[in-house]
Parts: sequence; C-alpha cells; structure tokens
Amino acid sequence: MDKIPILRMGNFLLVTIQVDLYDRLALDLEADLVQMVNKTSSKGVLIDISAVSIVDSFMGRIIGNIASMSKILDAETVVVGMQPAVAITLIELGLPLKGVHTALDVERGMNLLKSMIGDDHGDEDETDDDDTFTE
Amino acid sequence: MDKIPILRMGNFLLVTIQVDLYDRLALDLEADLVQMVNKTSSKGVLIDISAVSIVDSFMGRIIGNIASMSKILDAETVVVGMQPAVAITLIELGLPLKGVHTALDVERGMNLLKSMIGDDHGDEDETDDDDTFTE
Repeated sequence: MDKIPILRMGNFLLVTIQVDLYDRLALDLEADLVQMVNKTSSKGVLIDISAVSIVDSFMGRIIGNIASMSKILDAETVVVGMQPAVAITLIELGLPLKGVHTALDVERGMNLLKSMIGDDHGDEDETDDDDTFTE
Repeated sequence: MDKIPILRMGNFLLVTIQVDLYDRLALDLEADLVQMVNKTSSKGVLIDISAVSIVDSFMGRIIGNIASMSKILDAETVVVGMQPAVAITLIELGLPLKGVHTALDVERGMNLLKSMIGDDHGDEDETDDDDTFTE
C-alpha cells in the first residue's frame, strides 16, 4: 500500500490523501497524476485532504507543484476538505497555495471544476462562489 | 490521520482504503459509514480498494459487515478496483463477499449503483453487465 490511488470520475481525477506524504510517495503521486492527466485527457484534478490534520512546507509545495503541472497539461486543480487548522498552518508557513483552487467538500469542488471547464469555452473571468487563489 | 475519510458525491458515499485496516480503524470506519449513510440518506456506498494489495479474513469480514449494515439502511455497497491477487486470496480464504457488488473501477461502480437505484423503483431483477455476488 505504498501508492496513492487516483480515481477517474468522468472528466476528473480524484485523489484522497490519507497518509503522510513522505518524499518518495509524494514524488510518485506527482508523476502518476501527471501521467494519468495525460492518458485520460482529464480536465480537472480534485485533491481531498480532509484526513490531513498536520501539514508541513513539503506537503504545501507538493500540492502547489501538482497544480502547476496539471495547469500546463490544461487541467485545473481543486483542493477540497481542508481543515481549518491546516489553512492556518499553511498561511503561517507562508504558503498561500497560489494557483490552487479550493472548495469545502468534494461536491462543491466538483461543481467548481464543472463551472471552470464551462468557463473555458467562453472567457475565464469568474469562478463561482468558491474561494480561488489564482493570480 | 487515523480516520478514513468518507466523501459524499451526490447520492453516494465514496471511501478509498489506502492503509491497513487494523482493528480500531476498521470499526471506526464501520461506525462512521453507517452514521454517514443515515445522516445523508445516501443510496449507495462505493469502496475503492485499488490500493489494497494484501487482504486478510478480517478485512474481508469488515467489507461484508459494511455491506450488510448499509443494506439494512437501504443503501447498496459496491466494492471497486479489486486487484486480481486480492480476489484470489478472498476466495482461497473462503470469503466470497456475499451481498457485496463489485465493479472494475469507480466509474463502472457508480454506473452500477445508478442502475441499481433505478431498478429499485421498478423490480430488482438484473444489475447490468457488472459482476454481482448477491443471492
């Protein structure tokens, strides 16, 4: 069980992080996710971190990396289920997760992704009522 | 990180098992899942075990228990992403997962659940092309 599963749901990929993302696991996840985005032509990546109660700068950086990589492959990344304590820690660590969209839970994240993909066809000027940290 | 997150997706709940289900964790998952089915009036539970490469009789029993409990609360359980080796082990252990539906991946599992819920309103005589182990 040394691999984080990536679930395909229609146009999106869903990743649930339940374990500590130590170096090797995090790098594997990055690689797997980017390959999967490429292989399945996914338009969005949902990362659920509701089980994550402790976050460090490494994990913050990994999430940022995944978002940047997906963005280059034309997929948006939404982080969902962040616990309040994690949000506090991230800001205190000076990691505002630029370029990463967030939503309260998977359903809202899914709706946010759908609205973003819808916007893609038009112009990309607004992204619904959820918090976004882009630009 | 000593809790397995349960994700709500519309009418369904999704659980991804990535860690060894030792006693306390498994019992917590059972309890959480049943409460969540009750609270959200979910009609289906998807359990993704694609990250599980080793299975023992305890885990087989837990999955069976969850299915039975959900069934009483009027929710169907579909286990998805089972690795071939796990299927072999389960049968060799004498655990054919009675009452548990299975599908190859989350998308197929979701479709199976949708078709089952659709069938619920009519008569429940067939469940698509996916494997089912009921009755």
